[in-house]
Formats: sequence, structure tokens, C-alpha cells
Amino acid sequence: MPAPLSPAPTVPAELIAALQTLLGPKGWSMDASVLEQHNREARGKFTGAADIVLYPASTDEVAACVRLCHRAAIALVPQGGNTGRCGGAVADNGQILINLGRMNQIINTDARDFTMTVQAGTILHTIQQTAENHDLLFPLSLGAQGSCQIGGNLATNAGGLNVIRYGNTRDLVLGLEVVLADGTIWNGLSKLRKDNTGYDLRDLFIGSEGTLGIITACTLKLFPRPRQIATAWVALESVDAALDLLALARRESGDAIAAFELMSQFAQDLCIRHIQNCTTPLQTVAPWYAMIEITSSRPHDDLTTVMHGLLERALESGFISDGTIAQSEAQRANLWALREGIPPAQTREGGSIKHDVSVPVSSVPALIERGIAQALKRIPGIRPCPFGHVGDGNIHFNFSQPVDMPREVFLAQWENLNRDIHDIVADLGGSISAEHGIGRLKVEELAHYADPAKMQLLKAIKQAIDPQNTLNPGKIVNPA
Amino acid sequence: MPAPLSPAPTVPAELIAALQTLLGPKGWSMDASVLEQHNREARGKFTGAADIVLYPASTDEVAACVRLCHRAAIALVPQGGNTGRCGGAVADNGQILINLGRMNQIINTDARDFTMTVQAGTILHTIQQTAENHDLLFPLSLGAQGSCQIGGNLATNAGGLNVIRYGNTRDLVLGLEVVLADGTIWNGLSKLRKDNTGYDLRDLFIGSEGTLGIITACTLKLFPRPRQIATAWVALESVDAALDLLALARRESGDAIAAFELMSQFAQDLCIRHIQNCTTPLQTVAPWYAMIEITSSRPHDDLTTVMHGLLERALESGFISDGTIAQSEAQRANLWALREGIPPAQTREGGSIKHDVSVPVSSVPALIERGIAQALKRIPGIRPCPFGHVGDGNIHFNFSQPVDMPREVFLAQWENLNRDIHDIVADLGGSISAEHGIGRLKVEELAHYADPAKMQLLKAIKQAIDPQNTLNPGKIVNPA
Repeated sequence: MPAPLSPAPTVPAELIAALQTLLGPKGWSMDASVLEQHNREARGKFTGAADIVLYPASTDEVAACVRLCHRAAIALVPQGGNTGRCGGAVADNGQILINLGRMNQIINTDARDFTMTVQAGTILHTIQQTAENHDLLFPLSLGAQGSCQIGGNLATNAGGLNVIRYGNTRDLVLGLEVVLADGTIWNGLSKLRKDNTGYDLRDLFIGSEGTLGIITACTLKLFPRPRQIATAWVALESVDAALDLLALARRESGDAIAAFELMSQFAQDLCIRHIQNCTTPLQTVAPWYAMIEITSSRPHDDLTTVMHGLLERALESGFISDGTIAQSEAQRANLWALREGIPPAQTREGGSIKHDVSVPVSSVPALIERGIAQALKRIPGIRPCPFGHVGDGNIHFNFSQPVDMPREVFLAQWENLNRDIHDIVADLGGSISAEHGIGRLKVEELAHYADPAKMQLLKAIKQAIDPQNTLNPGKIVNPA
Repeated sequence: MPAPLSPAPTVPAELIAALQTLLGPKGWSMDASVLEQHNREARGKFTGAADIVLYPASTDEVAACVRLCHRAAIALVPQGGNTGRCGGAVADNGQILINLGRMNQIINTDARDFTMTVQAGTILHTIQQTAENHDLLFPLSLGAQGSCQIGGNLATNAGGLNVIRYGNTRDLVLGLEVVLADGTIWNGLSKLRKDNTGYDLRDLFIGSEGTLGIITACTLKLFPRPRQIATAWVALESVDAALDLLALARRESGDAIAAFELMSQFAQDLCIRHIQNCTTPLQTVAPWYAMIEITSSRPHDDLTTVMHGLLERALESGFISDGTIAQSEAQRANLWALREGIPPAQTREGGSIKHDVSVPVSSVPALIERGIAQALKRIPGIRPCPFGHVGDGNIHFNFSQPVDMPREVFLAQWENLNRDIHDIVADLGGSISAEHGIGRLKVEELAHYADPAKMQLLKAIKQAIDPQNTLNPGKIVNPA
């Protein structure tokens, strides 16, 4: 759990005045109701205490703000759409929030480069739409896409759907523009696909959660837009069989898998019980189900035939016991509703304890088996509800409360169960933060599980690039 | 050009004795003829002066060597297959070479994880073969693959063929094990596809040319092995048309392009003149030609039909003036011979001046046009011979000497022409080292062209991670 907010210096009045003059009336707010929105993280776990939020309108304004704060030794906390879950964009008292939302311009889209250059405050959904208008695809896709900003996606190296095909956010970026701790602007807004001129600064800033610099713009990779799509739902006897199916599907589809989502029978049943119009696509009852989607930008690709061949071979090999292919857009929508209905269905079923973990793909069966056994030992009657991106080794390892246990009694076990599951994850060479980052939430957890050599490197890098510790301090790692 | 070797301390006798005792008789050599092979870089531009080369047999031995050298403040220069071109693996007098060649074990291949874990001294070709034996593909492919080691590929973030489809070496790596400057071992040998627990150390070490740590093992991504292949040769009126063709090909093939190689008419003619059995695949004479190869792991993919559709649409759109598809493996081999014959054919045509540059894909036409104009201005009669990976913006911008100019007179212009071309590349937002890295060769060139903010960051990182500057000093960047 996060440490209590420590007493901190208040922001000097002269600094506030200088920032107000610099940015003009549209460039800041000290209004309590505005601040409340910026200070409160969506999930409700963290509430910040910033007295002022800045809205710079340009990279030069960001740089000027950083210079002023650096000189005054006052910390800045960068914020995008404030959709994070680990307290990474939450400011302590005496710190200043800098929100990039006004910097939301698409600078350039180039269909021959397959690139788009945008300011950091651009909403992810706007980027997706702009790509589509050019008959192209920006593959990053996640729940918060209507309000999250690309700068925040980069700062946290967001994952989401599509990772199995296109990679994490890191893999979708060619170049960055970053304001450094002293206000210097690093112009690394490259469109290059091959460049071996020194250390990989780009990937150092991506995923650094605003602790090394403030990302102000980026150049993104685009891809041909899928023209064909095929979606199937299959029944499986085991998680092990799902891995065999995944390997087969990669080969048979020509590595065209856009989604490969596993869910337990319990997860599917919850959806059918709680989500309107959700029906089971298969008569066969099985302990596990998977949804497979393959896509192609070829104009005449017969993906239904490809999927049919895949399912036939999977049946022959005993990897699946049944399967069906969506014959219409409506059927496809039903399959997606079933997958996407799991989190809301779980909410209606009572309290749940969740984990953002990953393990090597081949260790997913062990994680699930060992994790369920341990959870049942700690909380008899607990109902495991694992589902998610098995192809990334990234299972949403959720647990619903026992039917007859008071919600609060169950949720009081959150940290104990987390530690149980994280111990198993660590033993399997996995990660305690697959998607959401460290933020403030997992600072101690990271220090507990990480290789000491890694912790030393993280501290040395933070110290070297932000020696005064004024960029988002207290997140990821505390310098030595 | 490289600075002259500076006078350096000799290696203390006690350190040599301690290393010899540590590693045993197989673990080192001071034999002059052995050292000659390790000290001389293949292209002949650099010759080192190390008096001892170490051959550690394990990560622990590497760590122990580094600890001993660190305590004595003697520099270590890591070396793989010694196939680099920029002096990155060349040791000064008073420095110690550490060659990873004995650490050549395949630790693990997992067909369900699509991963292979290997020691750093494993030859690239061995990795390719091992993957193939599992019906999988490790896509990294380059000229030196029979002798280069994966550790060196990682240290330089090697490119080569296949980058357009699978990315650079960086994109093919999941985890690393690295010995740090003080001999600490960082175990980052992860198999995870999603992991957001702190700064991206992996990508910091990849491409750092041994200046931040010594990579001792890695976990690589594998892919389904292609089962189908189609290869075409087309005639084009302009480089601009090649970019339209490339964008079309990405869409029409379902982003399955394994090679998209452009070459000038002069380059093709050179091959036909100098390379045995090379014939022109097309009757049509054109200023440019391109070779397109698409591949698929699907068992029944009809790629010839896909390629046929692509060429038809390209003809209709006026992107190409002619095209042919290889109808047999022999015809395909002929097309590849034509592409791969360019460098040897150029050698037989006299002296050539070369550039390892990249620009945004959309700037390739401008690079070629402006580069040729400038080269002709500097050296009238010079014969431009551009060819290569246009899909990566990475043209091998080579120039053959004027027919009647003495070879030495032409080659004396190497640095002048390099500066001309690099100025144009910089103006187009390009890179002066697309593939081969900085090493010792381009340290001053990097400092000349790089953003000062970038240079500051490189120095700060080097200083933070190797504060004593004992890991491959003098390469990439000299700390402040």
C-alpha cells in the first residue's frame, strides 16, 4: 500500500505568479472543483493534493515551466488523461500538476512513411480515427481509449489488446520529443526505422512514467488497415491445450492473430448470467474457452477458410473439443460482448481481487494451477475468474468473493492474496506489473521483488537524468 | 578518421597473473598470431594493440574478470565474432580483450513460448538453424551470419535483411543477462512479452556496444517458419514510384513483405557485367528496379496469386512499367544473385565510397536526388550506385569511381564525400549510422551531428553506469 503523504513544502507564491504570467489565463487553474478532477485518480485508490494545475499550450511552454520549477526546486507531476491505476499521475501537496491536454494537435500523417506525428495530449481515439481516415491502422487499443492521452500511454508503455500482433506501445513508436529535468528540450522526433547512433534514449523515456522527462510529442508507426476479419470461439479442456492451440494458430494464420483471449467457464457463465443478450456460442460445456480473431489487409483474403482449417487441425490434434466461427458481424459482436462483459459481470457478482501480472507464455498453466490452489487455501470458497491475453502471458488473474462472505471481509484480504500470487509470479520469472506500471502503488513491491542489480541501475539512471529529483518524485524508484 | 592510439598504461603483471589463474589455460592467450586475429578488424580500418585476450567459459567467469579489472582500473573491450566495421571491438594498448566465443551454448528452445535462450557467444547461423529444426524462424539475417555472434549483434543492434517485417535486433529480444562495470551480474533473462516494472534496461544495453555492460546471454523471440514464398522483379521509372509500390505492397500482401530491395539501373548492369550467370529478368529497360519477396507460414497460402494481384494493381496505377514473378526456385535464386551481386560487382568496377545512412522512408527520393547532385559536383564522372532496403529508409548509398580516375585519387575523397552526404542526411532528419553503430569510427561524427541535449544524456548515462570508464572506453561517447 502507498506510504502516507509526507509533509512537503508549499509552492512559493513567486513561482505561482511566474507560471501564471508565463502561461496566461488559459494556462493554469487553482479552482477547487477543477483541481478535484485532476487530483483524484479514476479508480479511487489515490487522491492528490496539488494546489495548481498547469495547461501549457506548446513544448516551449512546457520547457519554460520546467525551468522555473527546476530553479525553485519544486516538483512537477505530468498528467495526461488521468486514466492510470497506480498513482503515477498523482501529486503531493507542494507539487505542481502539469496536464498536457491542450497539446492535442496531429502534426503530420504520412501514408508512405506509415507514420503519424502528434502532440502528447492527443486522445488515443483521435489517433485511431485519423489513421483510419488514411486507410491505416494505429493498433494500440485499450479500455480508456476515449479519454487517455498518447503521452500517458507512452509514459506507461501501455499494453491492451493487439499486443500479440503489434507489440506494446514501445513497439509502436519511432521518435519522441522530451522536456528534460532542467527544461532542455531533447528533439528525438525521428521517423527512422534504423538508427544506431548511441544509447536508446527513446525506450528509456517510454515507460519511465514521467520520472525522467516530460514527453511532449511522438512519431508513431502506422500499419495497413485490416480489410478481412475472422473470429472464432472454441472450447478447451485445459490451459495447456490453449498454448498448443496458440502455437498452431500462429503458424496456420500466417502470424495474423489480432486477439487470442482465454477465459474460464466461470467467467463465461458470469457474463451469461449478468450481461443482457449474452448467450453461449457453443453447446459444448468445457472448463475453458478461447476467442481467436485473425485479420488481414489483403483485399481478397479468405480468412474464414483459414480459420476453418485451423479449427479442423485443432480438433484432429485434440487441442479443442468444439468450435464455431462467427458468420456475421452480429455474431462477431456477440463473441466480443462475451469477452468484454467479464469485468462488469464480475462487479455484479460482488467483490473481486485483481492482479496485473504476466509470466512466460509457457508458464501460464502453472500460474493458474498454483495460484488457484493457494487462493483456495487462503480463502476457502473463493471463485477464481482468470481470463485475458494468454498469448502475452498476461492473464487478468481475478478472484470473485465466496458467495456467503461479506464483501468487506473478502476485500480485506486484497494485500495478502496479492502477495501470495506475486510470490508465485516471481517464482515463475514473471512480472508484478504487466500493463499498469509502478506509479506510487508498487514502489515497495518493486523494491521487494526486483533483482538488487536492477534496483541499483534504476536508481543510478534516475539520479543521472533527474539529479534534483523534481520530475514526478516518489514514483517507480526513490533515488539513493 | 580515428584518432591515433593514445599512450596507455600497460596491464599490470599481477592482474594478468590473477586472470590466468582464474580462467585456466584454455581461458586466455598472449600468443602473437592469436592476438593478431583478435586485434585486426575485418575491413582493415582498425588494428588494436591488446597484449592479452580472455576466453571466459561462463557468466561467473566474465563477472570475476570484470571485478579484477575494475579493481585495477584496467579497461575491458568485449568482442564477439569480430565482424564489426566501426572499431567497436578494437582494444588499445593497455586494455584487455574479452572474447565471448567459448560461451556458445543454446540454453533452451521453447516452441510454445516462441523463444530461445542462448549464451552471447553463439554464432548467429547456429541460432537460425536451431530455430529451423523446431520449425521456427529467427529472422535476423546478415552477411556475417556464419561468424558473427549474437552478443555482438545485440551490442550493435544489428539490422540486415528482414527488418521491414521483423524489426532490428532490438525488436527480437525479450531478455538479457549482463555483467555490469563492477562485476555485478544483472539477471534480466526474462521471457516476458509484457513487463512494466521500471526503466527499460534491456534496450539500454542493446546497441550500447559494450560500453555499459557485457551481455552474456539473451532470450530471443522466434516466429513461425515461412512455408510459402513469392518473389518478383519490377521495373520503375523513379524512386518516388518505389515508395508508392511499397505502400501498396504492404496492404496487398497483408504486411507480409520479407524483402523490398531497390537498385539503380547502373547497379543491375554492374552485376550482369561482372557476376557469372547473372541475367536481366526483364526486357524493359528502366532507371530503377526493385525486388519484392513476400512469405507466409500458412500451409496453403497462394502467394503467387497475391503477388500477381499486387503487380497488376501496380501496373494499373503506373507505379511500375514491367514485372515478373519467379516461377521456380532457380528463378528465385537468380533474382537474389542479382541483388547480392551488387557489392562484389562494384568491387570489380574499381574503388567505391560507401555510406551507412538512413532517412525517413518518404525522404529516400530526396536523399538520392540531392546526394547524386552533390557527388557529381564534387567528383565529376562519379557513378552513383544506390541500392538496398528502401522500406527501412536504409539505402546503401555507394558511389563507384569515375572510369578514368586513379583509384587512390578517388578514395582520397572518402571523407569529403561522406561529409557531403551526411550533411544532406542530417538535413533530412536521417542517421549517419543506420546499421553499423558508432564504435570508434564515428565518435567525432556523432558529436558533430547529434542534438547537444542527446550528447548530454549519452554522457550522463555512461557516467552513471560505468563511472570508472573501464568498459570499452572511447567508443560511442567520451564521458564529460
